[in-house]
Amino acid sequence: MRRFAAYLLCFTLVMLPLHAADAPTLRGYSAESSRVQRQWEEKFRAIPEPGNLRDYMRRLSARPHHVGSPYDKDNAEWIAAKAREWGLDATIESFDVLFPTPKERLLEMTEPTRYHAKIEEPAVAGDPTSGQKSEQLPVYNAYSIDGDVTGPLVYVNYGVPADYEQLDRLGISVKGAIVIARYGGSWRGIKPKVAAEHGAIGCLIYSDPRDDGYQQGDIFPAGPMRPPDGAQRGSVMDMPVYPGDPLTPGIGATRNAKRLALKDVTTLTKIPVMPISYGDAQPLLQALKGPLAPAAWRGALPITYHVGPGATRVHLKLAFNWDIKPLYDVIVRIPGSTYPDEWIIRGNHHDAWVNGAEDPISGMAPEMEEMRALGALLKQGWKPKRTIIYCAWDGEEPGLLGSTEWAEAHAAELKQKAAVYINSDGNGRGVLEAEGSHTLELFINTVAREIQDPEANVPVWTRLRDARLTNPETTNRGELRSRADLRIGALGSGSDYTAFLDHLGIASLNLGFGGEDRGGIYHSIYDDFYWYTHFSDTKFVYGRALAQLAGTAVIRLAGADLLPFDFDGFTDTVRRYIDEVEALARDRRQQTIERNRMIDDGVYAAADDPRHPLAPPPREAVPPVLNFAPLENGYAALERTAQAYSKALAQAAENGGSELARVSLRDVNARLIAVERALTLSDGLPQRPWFENQIYAPGFYTGYGVKTLPAVRESIEQKQWKLADEEIVRVGKVLENAGEAIDGATAALTRPAR
Amino acid sequence: MRRFAAYLLCFTLVMLPLHAADAPTLRGYSAESSRVQRQWEEKFRAIPEPGNLRDYMRRLSARPHHVGSPYDKDNAEWIAAKAREWGLDATIESFDVLFPTPKERLLEMTEPTRYHAKIEEPAVAGDPTSGQKSEQLPVYNAYSIDGDVTGPLVYVNYGVPADYEQLDRLGISVKGAIVIARYGGSWRGIKPKVAAEHGAIGCLIYSDPRDDGYQQGDIFPAGPMRPPDGAQRGSVMDMPVYPGDPLTPGIGATRNAKRLALKDVTTLTKIPVMPISYGDAQPLLQALKGPLAPAAWRGALPITYHVGPGATRVHLKLAFNWDIKPLYDVIVRIPGSTYPDEWIIRGNHHDAWVNGAEDPISGMAPEMEEMRALGALLKQGWKPKRTIIYCAWDGEEPGLLGSTEWAEAHAAELKQKAAVYINSDGNGRGVLEAEGSHTLELFINTVAREIQDPEANVPVWTRLRDARLTNPETTNRGELRSRADLRIGALGSGSDYTAFLDHLGIASLNLGFGGEDRGGIYHSIYDDFYWYTHFSDTKFVYGRALAQLAGTAVIRLAGADLLPFDFDGFTDTVRRYIDEVEALARDRRQQTIERNRMIDDGVYAAADDPRHPLAPPPREAVPPVLNFAPLENGYAALERTAQAYSKALAQAAENGGSELARVSLRDVNARLIAVERALTLSDGLPQRPWFENQIYAPGFYTGYGVKTLPAVRESIEQKQWKLADEEIVRVGKVLENAGEAIDGATAALTRPAR
Repeated sequence: MRRFAAYLLCFTLVMLPLHAADAPTLRGYSAESSRVQRQWEEKFRAIPEPGNLRDYMRRLSARPHHVGSPYDKDNAEWIAAKAREWGLDATIESFDVLFPTPKERLLEMTEPTRYHAKIEEPAVAGDPTSGQKSEQLPVYNAYSIDGDVTGPLVYVNYGVPADYEQLDRLGISVKGAIVIARYGGSWRGIKPKVAAEHGAIGCLIYSDPRDDGYQQGDIFPAGPMRPPDGAQRGSVMDMPVYPGDPLTPGIGATRNAKRLALKDVTTLTKIPVMPISYGDAQPLLQALKGPLAPAAWRGALPITYHVGPGATRVHLKLAFNWDIKPLYDVIVRIPGSTYPDEWIIRGNHHDAWVNGAEDPISGMAPEMEEMRALGALLKQGWKPKRTIIYCAWDGEEPGLLGSTEWAEAHAAELKQKAAVYINSDGNGRGVLEAEGSHTLELFINTVAREIQDPEANVPVWTRLRDARLTNPETTNRGELRSRADLRIGALGSGSDYTAFLDHLGIASLNLGFGGEDRGGIYHSIYDDFYWYTHFSDTKFVYGRALAQLAGTAVIRLAGADLLPFDFDGFTDTVRRYIDEVEALARDRRQQTIERNRMIDDGVYAAADDPRHPLAPPPREAVPPVLNFAPLENGYAALERTAQAYSKALAQAAENGGSELARVSLRDVNARLIAVERALTLSDGLPQRPWFENQIYAPGFYTGYGVKTLPAVRESIEQKQWKLADEEIVRVGKVLENAGEAIDGATAALTRPAR
Repeated sequence: MRRFAAYLLCFTLVMLPLHAADAPTLRGYSAESSRVQRQWEEKFRAIPEPGNLRDYMRRLSARPHHVGSPYDKDNAEWIAAKAREWGLDATIESFDVLFPTPKERLLEMTEPTRYHAKIEEPAVAGDPTSGQKSEQLPVYNAYSIDGDVTGPLVYVNYGVPADYEQLDRLGISVKGAIVIARYGGSWRGIKPKVAAEHGAIGCLIYSDPRDDGYQQGDIFPAGPMRPPDGAQRGSVMDMPVYPGDPLTPGIGATRNAKRLALKDVTTLTKIPVMPISYGDAQPLLQALKGPLAPAAWRGALPITYHVGPGATRVHLKLAFNWDIKPLYDVIVRIPGSTYPDEWIIRGNHHDAWVNGAEDPISGMAPEMEEMRALGALLKQGWKPKRTIIYCAWDGEEPGLLGSTEWAEAHAAELKQKAAVYINSDGNGRGVLEAEGSHTLELFINTVAREIQDPEANVPVWTRLRDARLTNPETTNRGELRSRADLRIGALGSGSDYTAFLDHLGIASLNLGFGGEDRGGIYHSIYDDFYWYTHFSDTKFVYGRALAQLAGTAVIRLAGADLLPFDFDGFTDTVRRYIDEVEALARDRRQQTIERNRMIDDGVYAAADDPRHPLAPPPREAVPPVLNFAPLENGYAALERTAQAYSKALAQAAENGGSELARVSLRDVNARLIAVERALTLSDGLPQRPWFENQIYAPGFYTGYGVKTLPAVRESIEQKQWKLADEEIVRVGKVLENAGEAIDGATAALTRPAR
């Protein structure tokens, strides 16, 4: 098998400089086109300059630039102007979206003592932008509803469903209460959603110092972590239902688009919700009585954590300006020379909650430097075969607005033409963080072997493998050493790939570096140039590595004769997902049987501590044995067709790829793109039709966290057994469809062009 | 097999009252003697009264009663007087032991700021005994050497060997430094020992609020947990080498015993050491710079934990009165009617660090109530076959002094006569806590089935099983349901069974209840009547259960025709220990190979974060493959002989045990006692000859925590491969010796009496 031979070769050569002349042939290229491509790539990678990244960051994060702010528009125009300066075709596409901002924010404890929450992040001496008070958005959660509620306070840990099961066993109800949850354990928007499902009337979300405050390191400005009055802004829109403008689900929020009435929107919260600092949280948590919080719920505040409520009552009043605001997506196009209707799309957002040096500018700056480099290559005569589209998205922070509206507005054309979407969203110092479609796992491994790590003097691929090898929690060192490719994680949500991958079925990657520096400034006024240049990639060398990595991926995809999708790695991954859902169903069944037996035998009652009572869990019907045969049959089709494609590709690649000249590459490429679309169903996931991808989705109760084979996995998790049986059939059919699509590509690859 | 049939019967009957008439025959009894015995046991269990326990506790904890204090002697005399009042023969045996008390204690931080440590626990309003300042021992660690040291401060987490490996990788040395370790992770005496091995010149041990302060519950007096100025006294004598009086190793510290000179004692610390509160620790820890403490090292103080040292310097000055003080062991004897030279010994200590309501009086009070009950039975005509000896030990807290000196003074007679030692050391509310010799596992399971839990209305046996079943970490629910007996843990050290089990090879049990109430008053002035009657077994119903449990065990052992040792359960347990040490050797080998490979491949170097460098671990020689055959052959002998004994016992027990009348029970019992002695070697463990037991010992680097098959396990852990091979041979021989001893018992059981 050519592929493995090539990789073994690659592996033994990683420490040597790979010169274009002696490097192995790139997948999807002939020997000759590969040689030429490698020369362009080497030129490309020599261009990005850390000093430029620093300049872009300083400029783009100089003032607060959230949706609707003057500097947000100014940044978009500046990015477009720079692209034009570099010789590129840049336009700004605008959308009009619902973007609420605070009109009134009040939080006070009224009993047993009075405490008036500050909800205010103070300026820090020495950090010049932290004092730009007049332009900063206050601390709030976007898409919380208005509300004026008073009630007892209950601490709900992360506020995920399992936490409420624990509260039930502790005999604590949140009905009519305001809950206080800590950040973490789920995406923030899940917390008010689950709280409302359990009858809560309001929700506070605070940053515990155990998670990103003093327990993790020195606090800002002495260190990178969250200071006592720092708070995390953020969207609480119900994005697992649909992201983007709440008023225009499924369509672009153009000026004259048909909009929902505010009252008909389903993605606003059901209860008012506000984020607070640990400075504001401590008096509230300290006042709670009731059961001692379970050990895993306790944070790092110097208090005894109780669940509540006791006599503690809080008053939360929130009112918002429910305005429509304009978005400014910057769209930069480089037309393809051979396949102009096959698109390689690259994006990072430019809007921030406040100054946003790390989030998003540390990713935006490298993306700009990629544009500059591509402009330079074009001037030297480089011609990408495919159309390249660089995007600087607006409105990511409130709810992936800019990317979603653009994807929805251009859905038909994107479904037809988009081959790959490559995203980034901030960047830091450390190891490669690559997630995405497993049809691209082999491809991004190849690229990662050719990018040098600026600290470790080895390829970023090697460093990632070595970081995994040294991780004490790693259990698969054998596979890490023997498998040709490092596994990449699946994508959930939380950034702009969502509409491309989950809604349209476009193979996507999310790239970046990180893991070495912790930070506690996320979505606060302290995420700024001062913080980033003191505590993160201060020399911008990982910024350069990201530009090299993502840019190489873009031009290699754009220059390939044949799109380098790989179905063997994808099949291998799907096998793991199927094993997981089968084990999940089996475990749930066994756990229910075991638990019911313990309930029936009085085991919980006998073991209970009457001074700290914990009720038995509720008795549940034993889950049926599910029929996974349809999924297994779908898998069998996928496995068989993937192997056949690999064999055909290996044959076509023999003799320097001369066979490729005889087939219609356009036809093969179109069919390869179609494989990815075959992973979608137009009616989407149960109760959330916008999410069409049947392999990857953000979890309905995790928000950002991915659920693979989501329809099957979530119906099991949610104990919907009949639905699970139905979804197994549907997803099995999807795998068969994908197999047919792969067979189509194989046939095209083995059929001489007409 | 009779045993299993009896247990199944027992199991199905647990919810019913077991009347003497219809209960199954007790192991080691004939049908008739069993019936009579059960009647006496029922009478016994009806006697203990919670009100008496409360009265004893109030009296015994009314004033500080540490070694050498007036109230320590007063308590001993009062206990003896009560025993005599109940018609028992009580004497006081006195020993003269080295017991240092503080003359001078000074701890101050001199740089970067000054802080003078309080080292003082304040009286608490409402807690009457906390104000008895004139009689309280100050906060200190007994058997620390004198010292006056100044140096930089380094935080070493728990201060166990693995923590120093981590410090090495962080590039931090403790040479010439004073270390600050937190309580936990090992017995406290290990901390200065390991610190000194690494070149430290002083050691502080503090109680982190994460472990027994506010993070675990409300603090005293509002709740049971440690207040900011509470500190944990305790011994730091090197007890894993030998416990008891440091001046008289191996012999009783009688008035004229030959004593070592102080300078020749090996069990004092090598560096000065003192315990401090978290109130005193916080300014010191907060001043540390240097690397961020690893995540697992961080406690619950509201600071960022650094390892140090930075500019922090501390000055520690300690001087002690190195006095010889008298001990008062109370010894109460009930002579046996049939086998006066077979002894059943029961003990709990009476000395405390301060008032010691929980430690030790909550265990001492039930033991007294057992004595009262036995006195009452004697008056009703009960006659134990074996001699019963009740002991109230003095000097347990400084180093198991009273029990060790008594055991050493009477070693020859004890080796001859002692059948079983049953210990307790405090008591609380909750589930059964039973540990000990696995030859007694079956026996104590039988007893535990007949003691009613005062909260759950099921036998304490059932509640323990159910608590294990509901524990989320339990993985062996199948075994928990199917195995006749609940497994008991092995004994390490930390209480008065040590000399009996580890030095003399006497089958031992340690019994108590607990697990429902947490406390943070251990070895502080707040462990007093007020605390216990507010936060622990406030109704003394678990005190009654302990008296019923331990007392039933004593009189059942004392009344049996045949000592109820079981070798099948013991064999089953030894199999597990052998599997563990074999896996340990295998894992160490594989881990070394893997780690060396990663070092050689530069994996650690590539993965390292230059801003937070972590050096690779040192390269080590790959451990050899050890020859476990001698241990396996020993096990085979043990297994074979245990099965033969069980078969012989089952035959003897047929027809109501009528066969037993034909054999010399005295001979069988003597041989059964000899089996336990066969588990010892007179030259003990490597480098610590006092510890003769080859199955159980406290760990050289854990202190209290047990190491089973200690010679083999520790030589592997300490990478002494040649020694490991030798010890495998020795321990294999010990198992063969035990097998021969069992065969001796079997032969005696199947041979008609001469």
